[in-house]
Amino acid sequence: MSVEPRLYVEAPLEADAVLDLDRDQAHYLVNVMRRKAGDGVRLFNGRDGEWRAEVASADRKRASLQIVQQRRSQSAAPDMALYFAPVKKARTDFIVEKATELGVASITPVITQRTQSDRVRTDRMQALTREASEQTERLDLPVIHEPVSLTQMIKAWDAARTLMFADESGDSQTEPWGGEHGRARPIAEALAGRERDGKWAMLVGPEGGFSVEERTLLHAQTFVLPVSLGPRILRADTAAAAALSVWQSMLGDW
Amino acid sequence: MSVEPRLYVEAPLEADAVLDLDRDQAHYLVNVMRRKAGDGVRLFNGRDGEWRAEVASADRKRASLQIVQQRRSQSAAPDMALYFAPVKKARTDFIVEKATELGVASITPVITQRTQSDRVRTDRMQALTREASEQTERLDLPVIHEPVSLTQMIKAWDAARTLMFADESGDSQTEPWGGEHGRARPIAEALAGRERDGKWAMLVGPEGGFSVEERTLLHAQTFVLPVSLGPRILRADTAAAAALSVWQSMLGDW
Repeated sequence: MSVEPRLYVEAPLEADAVLDLDRDQAHYLVNVMRRKAGDGVRLFNGRDGEWRAEVASADRKRASLQIVQQRRSQSAAPDMALYFAPVKKARTDFIVEKATELGVASITPVITQRTQSDRVRTDRMQALTREASEQTERLDLPVIHEPVSLTQMIKAWDAARTLMFADESGDSQTEPWGGEHGRARPIAEALAGRERDGKWAMLVGPEGGFSVEERTLLHAQTFVLPVSLGPRILRADTAAAAALSVWQSMLGDW
Repeated sequence: MSVEPRLYVEAPLEADAVLDLDRDQAHYLVNVMRRKAGDGVRLFNGRDGEWRAEVASADRKRASLQIVQQRRSQSAAPDMALYFAPVKKARTDFIVEKATELGVASITPVITQRTQSDRVRTDRMQALTREASEQTERLDLPVIHEPVSLTQMIKAWDAARTLMFADESGDSQTEPWGGEHGRARPIAEALAGRERDGKWAMLVGPEGGFSVEERTLLHAQTFVLPVSLGPRILRADTAAAAALSVWQSMLGDW
């Protein structure tokens, strides 16, 4: 593939500026991607759109880029915030990577009663979103927030933001959530006819599901929209990817 | 969690039968799940629905089960066949696991011009679908087919089966696929109004995308439905999960 490498940088991007890459990015560009002086690179910083640059000088440890011209102007991603209960490392990585590709605006780890991993590496999440954003041609990075507890999260909620919630735990199926709280409807039905430019969020539970108290709390909130993702029980990471995909196809920017 | 373990077995399931587990499953049940004589287990074999059984006897290497009664009768999964170009091991595993959870009927590796891994471990794929089917409460396993080349696959295609195809490679965007072949439409729009009980398939390309010849071949087929999965470039595994989720929500059993 001769596609030009795409890098996220923090510096402002403007015509004719010169930019020195940090050591990791210089290594990637020069040693991994084997780019030399004169080769093209694409840059974005989450604010100034995407720019074309050329390698001005490069050796094994340093690279400096000459910014040439803007290719795309900055545009906002849909307003979808992901809240998820951290699971095992590989699956947490997966959720962060997929959510970035699927265009979420922010990612917040949520600590629930059955959350197994209490140590959440937000620095690692940040590195993953950066890499995935470079790959997926996003113009911005999802914002990574520090972990919150589910109760804090609900207490501080902006009621104008609809919170989709897919209750994938096996034991929930025997509980009578119908009636006054409203049983989860199939996601396509639950989202049909909603406005495109609303504020949205998706909540994904831990592998063991939410506790009965947590489910009661969630179902009692007017801003919570329980959705069903079909007859099979989905793992937390699958549920996140599935719900975000359906939402993007119906209400997002797909 | 006190959910009863769920096991895929090959033997017929019928009331009052006694079943000896193989060594791996006995180990899982006795040593990992710590089940003893009298504990409940759920069994499925892809033909006879789901049955409740009880552990009749168990030691560290052996376990035999007494089948008690049927809990669910067999039902067919939607007719969605997944074809994918094998990618790196972790992502191939991911595609197989997610496709199983997302309810595909079969999975076929497809060798394309840019497919990197020519060694495809269908035995490993089979083990993954079995484990994922146990987890996801499916009543059947996806059928794993031996690898085919893209050209073979197209040559032998049943034209009554619609083949969705998401062209996620970066370089495709500069090629003029509009006009007579029809540019890819957003997936929700492409699937709107289609019949629920049709025969479907999804094709996911390799990380480097399809070659120009392959794309020309695909776009020339009347049964191919090019779909777009939004403005971001998705990795092969993300594209598979995303397209299957949207399809399930619109035309499948969600």
